[in-house]
Order: sequence, then structure tokens, then C-alpha cells
Amino acid sequence: MSTLSFNTPLTDAFLVDLRTLLQPADLLMGPEDLERFCHDETEDLRFPPQVVVQPRTTEQVAAVVKICAAHHVPITPMGARTGLSGGALAVYGGVGLSMAKMDAIIAIDEKNLQVTVEPGVITQVLQEAVAAKGLYYAPDPSSRGSCTIGGNLAENAGGPRAVKYGVTRDFVLNLEVVLPNGEVVWTGANTLKNSTGYDLTRLLVGSEGTLGIITKAVLRLIPLPKESRLMLVPFRDAHKACQAVSAVFRAGVTPSALEFMERDAIDWTLRFIDGVNLTIADDTAAHLLIEVDGNHGDVLLRDCEIILGVMEKFDCQEVLFAETSAEKDALWKLRRRVAEAVKGNSVYKEEDTVVPRYELPNLLAKVKEVGTKYGFKSVCYGHAGDGNLHVNIIKGDMSDEAWENELPKAIREIFEFTVSVGGTLSGEHGIGLVQRPYMDIAFNQVQLELMRGIKKLFDPLGIMNPGKVLP
Amino acid sequence: MSTLSFNTPLTDAFLVDLRTLLQPADLLMGPEDLERFCHDETEDLRFPPQVVVQPRTTEQVAAVVKICAAHHVPITPMGARTGLSGGALAVYGGVGLSMAKMDAIIAIDEKNLQVTVEPGVITQVLQEAVAAKGLYYAPDPSSRGSCTIGGNLAENAGGPRAVKYGVTRDFVLNLEVVLPNGEVVWTGANTLKNSTGYDLTRLLVGSEGTLGIITKAVLRLIPLPKESRLMLVPFRDAHKACQAVSAVFRAGVTPSALEFMERDAIDWTLRFIDGVNLTIADDTAAHLLIEVDGNHGDVLLRDCEIILGVMEKFDCQEVLFAETSAEKDALWKLRRRVAEAVKGNSVYKEEDTVVPRYELPNLLAKVKEVGTKYGFKSVCYGHAGDGNLHVNIIKGDMSDEAWENELPKAIREIFEFTVSVGGTLSGEHGIGLVQRPYMDIAFNQVQLELMRGIKKLFDPLGIMNPGKVLP
Repeated sequence: MSTLSFNTPLTDAFLVDLRTLLQPADLLMGPEDLERFCHDETEDLRFPPQVVVQPRTTEQVAAVVKICAAHHVPITPMGARTGLSGGALAVYGGVGLSMAKMDAIIAIDEKNLQVTVEPGVITQVLQEAVAAKGLYYAPDPSSRGSCTIGGNLAENAGGPRAVKYGVTRDFVLNLEVVLPNGEVVWTGANTLKNSTGYDLTRLLVGSEGTLGIITKAVLRLIPLPKESRLMLVPFRDAHKACQAVSAVFRAGVTPSALEFMERDAIDWTLRFIDGVNLTIADDTAAHLLIEVDGNHGDVLLRDCEIILGVMEKFDCQEVLFAETSAEKDALWKLRRRVAEAVKGNSVYKEEDTVVPRYELPNLLAKVKEVGTKYGFKSVCYGHAGDGNLHVNIIKGDMSDEAWENELPKAIREIFEFTVSVGGTLSGEHGIGLVQRPYMDIAFNQVQLELMRGIKKLFDPLGIMNPGKVLP
Repeated sequence: MSTLSFNTPLTDAFLVDLRTLLQPADLLMGPEDLERFCHDETEDLRFPPQVVVQPRTTEQVAAVVKICAAHHVPITPMGARTGLSGGALAVYGGVGLSMAKMDAIIAIDEKNLQVTVEPGVITQVLQEAVAAKGLYYAPDPSSRGSCTIGGNLAENAGGPRAVKYGVTRDFVLNLEVVLPNGEVVWTGANTLKNSTGYDLTRLLVGSEGTLGIITKAVLRLIPLPKESRLMLVPFRDAHKACQAVSAVFRAGVTPSALEFMERDAIDWTLRFIDGVNLTIADDTAAHLLIEVDGNHGDVLLRDCEIILGVMEKFDCQEVLFAETSAEKDALWKLRRRVAEAVKGNSVYKEEDTVVPRYELPNLLAKVKEVGTKYGFKSVCYGHAGDGNLHVNIIKGDMSDEAWENELPKAIREIFEFTVSVGGTLSGEHGIGLVQRPYMDIAFNQVQLELMRGIKKLFDPLGIMNPGKVLP
């Protein structure tokens, strides 16, 4: 990988090869196009590719990859560029390989409860297409309205429903992948169980486009739950809210979502979005948003009663039940748009910390302690049921110098804490570019050498999404 | 790997190193001991190790592995030797590394719904220990009373409950592994979500002891379902029974078990076991055993009604509901002991075929068609809800010559069919020794070279369970 240079000028021979393969509309080199593909949703980072390629078939992807391999040009696979760790940033220039035009839902297999898709399909589009047939694709990142399945697979995305149904990884049966030498392989079989050779499927999931390019995915579906109940539970004490989380599971209930939001997260979002009216008591410090789903309304009510009993033990305030689907939508809008609201408010950095569920109150306390030490405010929210806390560090009054030089030390302290309690760096956003400097906290040299060996095995030239994941 | 020889005599220097490390009771070389460790439950295959080592700590495992690496002696990790693909057979002799003495349940973490175990713990022992605290470890291979978690992890074992809860892979959070060079690493973190580097955890699960030795596992637990209902549904037509399987899911119900048994499987088992009285109509060809579980008895009854409605559409005969827990136990005993009963009846070979669920009737038809062509009878049963059909090929009147030379062609035809409909070779038993000759059906050279590369990365000397998985 060390032989790759940053933004080496593209040769005429390389461009001729690309032009022979692709229609002009699928090969973008204009400044505005490169500008459009130079960022994802990670802070304000900008790394323009030198050319954007938009293949329409697996064969085209394979041919592009072979051309890049022959000319030693780096490739950065790109989905909808909604990522939060910089995985889709073309830090070495080269080809930005946009999968946006490969967005077909190839087949919804109602007999086997499977769906075969291309990577560019938007997650919510897929969810709605299968829901129309009474089926459910559960992983639902907050960006589901714009993110794509390919990116979800690359980052092993989660979302609120992961707490009951699992993450993207748990819904993948089989992947078609273009390897960094241009060969096309399927990773497994279209079966629910598989003990046949090494699990290449799950090696590719979460590999952030560094081992190959996913060109098709066979995903598992489940029957669509018929009903849900949603409640917003305010707390005077954020730590008690966190403590209540693990008590819910201990009471025998597995909610379909169990989200945590600090006061500021809700306040900022209420100011940011339209159409949601919510009065929050002056002394409310945090909320839990709790959903249960299933096929039987009476059971959901009983589950809600059990959850309420748990909440009361942790001094909750008055619980708000969403009575209509409009009210449910409003509460979910509030939760899903927190990230944008925080982002609109200040320069920030977001960390995707994850710990065993019961450590959540301790993680929250640690974040605040580190904030006090280094002089930053933080807004925390996330998938509390999974122990997955998004820590938004707000620049506020911090000097540019401290933001650049001191903050990495603060982040390191937070990650050292998560690892010390059995957690790790990222629950669902991936390592990408921005968490790479912290990988030594989660892994020692032996572990990192195994990962580097896997990278080298798949991508000996080091052309596939260089500069990501591995330090 | 080519440098390893079959049963090269162990040197004195090697044995001195082992004796320095281990107590005499943990180092077995007597003929009876080697005899005891020369087989698993795969047909009648026998491959004695040259020495059996029974370490008690991770440090001892690491030291044994370092000694073997230094002396270039092959290591075959062994659990309870209940495997059905020959994964624990010491085909190259060398060290049989029995993990039986590392059988502690280290900690049941009720706050985080996790448990940390050593690999030698028996699956049912673990299940009962966590059930006593209201928690559930769902993977339950039929051999759960004797198999161990280490073997379950190595083979990615399933069992009847996988259809609702997932296989062993889906319950693993983190593994401590001794690599083939004796280094000890953890593969991940103790979290429900993890997008931090490549998924070494799931690369190790199902790798059948060829990449390292699992010495500790952190497993996910869920709340124990409070109730279950169990019914046995007879059919005149085995194909209709298979068709009914996928219709159950399409009706929106996910049973906690959905098992298929051909007539012979039940007849043979009823003769083999004591204490189960069951009258089967003369014209019954197959049964489905269907369980639903949950926290609410009334919901389970409603689920049963939906299932009954589906069954009637496929011409089921009179359904037997288990009314008491003794009746449930009897039906489960019947299902769990089919394999032993078939084994006791004839020389046989078992294949662990798996296809997308709806292909099950076609798979059954194909198995019978191939049997007619090659002149064998088969008894089929298995986890129909997962499309996982255990095909027991009965030698019966087949000549030894045909059994040796023709049967592999028949098996090849069956596997070619499973792969042609999106299935594969093994759902839960692994490839081990006996399915290795068929790996080319499931994977082409590109895929196999990736797997060989992974093997070489982890085990450059080729000492770890040589002769398994990869052809």
C-alpha cells in the first residue's frame, strides 16, 4: 500500500481505458461533480476523487477494477455518502466508484423470505417494498431515507431496531463481490444456516470497502410485525435513565427500540425540525424512547406495563404514549434527526462508542468527566439498548488549537474507558478514516497484523479504499 | 501444509517438552486412551492421535501450541467428539488437544445478559445454569447433553431453535483464541454491536479448529421464554409436509422449532428408545414437530391456531398436542435421538444438506430420485424451518463396492442440486474431513484460494487441524 501516492495525475492511457468501457454520463470529471463526491457526512472533511465512475452492472465494476489494478489507481467505493467515519472519502484521489446507479431490487422472494438487491438501493425504499408484501427488513439506520444497502453492508450499520432484530450483518445471507483484482465471487449461499468453509460473507460485512466491492446482496426477511407501541420517558437524572435500560431486559422484555437522548439533544432537535410539539419539564435531564412491536396489541400493552414498572423504579417523570401513528412519526422524527440538529448547531465531532449495556451510565459519566477536564460540552444520544452511545463533542468555546491538539487526547481517554469495560471504538459507524488513529486502543499488534494480512490477501496492490480502517 | 507427514514418530525432545509443561494425568499415551480419542460420531472413522493433551489453562494451551510449532507436530483440537463431519479426527496423528478439562462457566453476567465460558462446558450444562437465572442460551444441537460449546463454535452448530433464535454464530460476542503460533488474542469486544475492524470473531466461528483454538467465549444471552406449545403433525404425503413449512412463516408466525421427520425416522426411533408411546397411522409418511414459545400462553394458542390452519391446507392428519411437560419431553426425545436410532440400524452416511426453505420438497424429491438411481434407501429428517435436511443414506443391500465407489457420485449429485437452488453442503455439521471432497461444488478456485490464503495467514506451518475443510 505504501507505493500508492496521493493524487498521482491520471494518465491518458487510464482515461482512454475508462472511456472505452463507460458511457460519458457514467464518467464524471467536472469540478462540480468532483465537489459533489468529495465528502460524506463526517464532520467537514473534503477529499475529492480525480474521477467519478458510475457503473451499471457487475461486469462494469469488474472491468473498472481491472483497469484500476492495471494502472495502479486507487478506488474508493461510494454509496450515498451518508457515512459518519469518512469511509467513502477518496483520501488518495483516484476513482470514486459510485454505486448509485446499481439500485435495483432484483427479486423479492416471498416463498423463501429473501430479497436480492443491488447495493445502491436506498434502505427505506427496500423496507417499503418488502413491507408492501408483509415482510420486514429490520436494520434501519437513522439515515435510512438516504443511505444505501451497500453502505450499510460496508459499515455493518445498525439503527434503533438492532436491539431486537440485530444489525445489518444479521440480515445478510450471501454477497456478490468484485475482488480488488476484478474477479467476481459469491461469498456464501442463500441459506439461513451455513457451515461450509470460512465465513467470507461476514468478513466482507463491515470491511468498509477495503476488501472488495459488494455488487449484489441476498438479504434475509422476516414477517412484518403488525403493531407497535411507542413511549417517551423523561427522567430528572440521566444516569438513572441509563440504569433503567438494562433493567428492562432483566424484566424479560426485549423492546424493538430503546433509545437514549440527553436533554440538549431533544431541545436542539425541537428547534431544528418543524411540526413536533413537545413540552419538556424544566428539570428533565434525559429521555428514553421505547418501542415494543409484535402481532398482538394486548401483549404489547402488557409489555408496556412491565416497562412502566421498571421506569418508575428509576424515578421517571410523566410518560408520554404516542396514541396515533402521526404521534409515533413525530417522536421518531425527533430521534432520527438529532444528528443533523446537533451538526447544524456547532462544529462538532461524533464518536460511536459502544459498551456492554449495563456500563452505559458509567460511560456517560466518563464522557462528562473527560469533557470537564478538557473543556468541552457534549450531547449524547443513541441506541442505549445496545450500549451504543453517540457522543457529540461540541466545539463551542474551545480554541482551534485545543480542538486540534487536545481533543484527540480526550477522545483517546473515552475510548480507553470503553475498551476497559469490554466495549470498543465503533458500534455501527465503522472506523473509516477518522477513528483509525485509535485502533491501537482496541487491538494489539498481533490482532492488527492478522487484519493487515487479510487486507493484503484480498488486495495485494492496496488499491481498494486505501487509507481506511487499519492504521 | 505439504511438509506434514502422517504420523511421523514423535521425538523424545518433543515429549520431554510436553512432560515439562503438563502433569502426567493431562498427557495420555496409553493405547486405550488413544483409542478413546480416535473417533468422533462420524460414521465409523478412526484416526488415533499419537498423544492426547488435556490442558487446564489458556497458558497451557499456548505453551502446547508453541511446542508443537517448534517441533512441527500437528494439533487436532477436540471437544466432546460428537461431531458429524470428522472435524476432530487426528488424520495426521500428532497431538489430540482435548479441551474437556477447560469446562468452567467463568461468569454469568446478569446485568449485561452475557456469559463467559471455557470451551469444554457442555452445552446443556450451560443452558441449565443460565436458565436458573431466567436467561436463555438458545443454540441447542441434538447432542446438547454431551457436546461442548467449543465444538459448537468450531462447527457453527445449530439445532432446532436456530429457526427462531439463530445459530451459534449469532450468540457469540467475543472469543479468546490461541493462534497456531501460540499467541493469545481476543477477536472482538463484549458488545452487541461492533463495527471496529474486520470481524475476526465470525471468521473463527465455523473454522473447525483450523485457524486457532478457542479458549474462552463471551456469549450473548436473552430472557428465557416463559412458555411453549408443542405439536406433532402427521402427513400422508411427505412433500406436502415440506410445503407446509414455508407456508407457516408466510402466515406471519416464527416457530421456535419446525422439524421434519420421515416415517422411518420415527419408526426406527420408537423402536430404539424406551418410554415413548405413539401410535402412527399406517398411511402416515412424515411428521412435522412444531414448537412456539414466548411469554404469553394466550398468544401461543393463537399462534397454534394459525399454524393449524396452515397445516390443514396441506392435508395433515390428526394433530397431537403435547399437554404436559412429560409429553413434550417425550416428543423431543423422539426427535433428538433420531440420529442415534438410524445409526444403530445400519451402516450409513449422513449429509447435512441445506437449501432455501421453499426448496425443501424439491430437495427431498431429489434425494429419493438419486437413491432410486444408485440403489440406496434414505431416511431424512432435520430442521425444516431452516431448509436444513439431514439425509441419512442407508447402506442396506448396497454392495461394498457400490458403497465405496458409486455412493460418492450420488452424494455429488445431491450437493450439485443443493448448490443449484442457492443452497450448500453443510448447514450445521461443518465440512471437516468427510465433506472436503465436495467443496469444489460449493466454491470455485477463486473462493477456495481466498480460504486457503486465510488458512495460511493464520497457520503458515499448517499444523492446526490439518486435512480438514479445504481440499
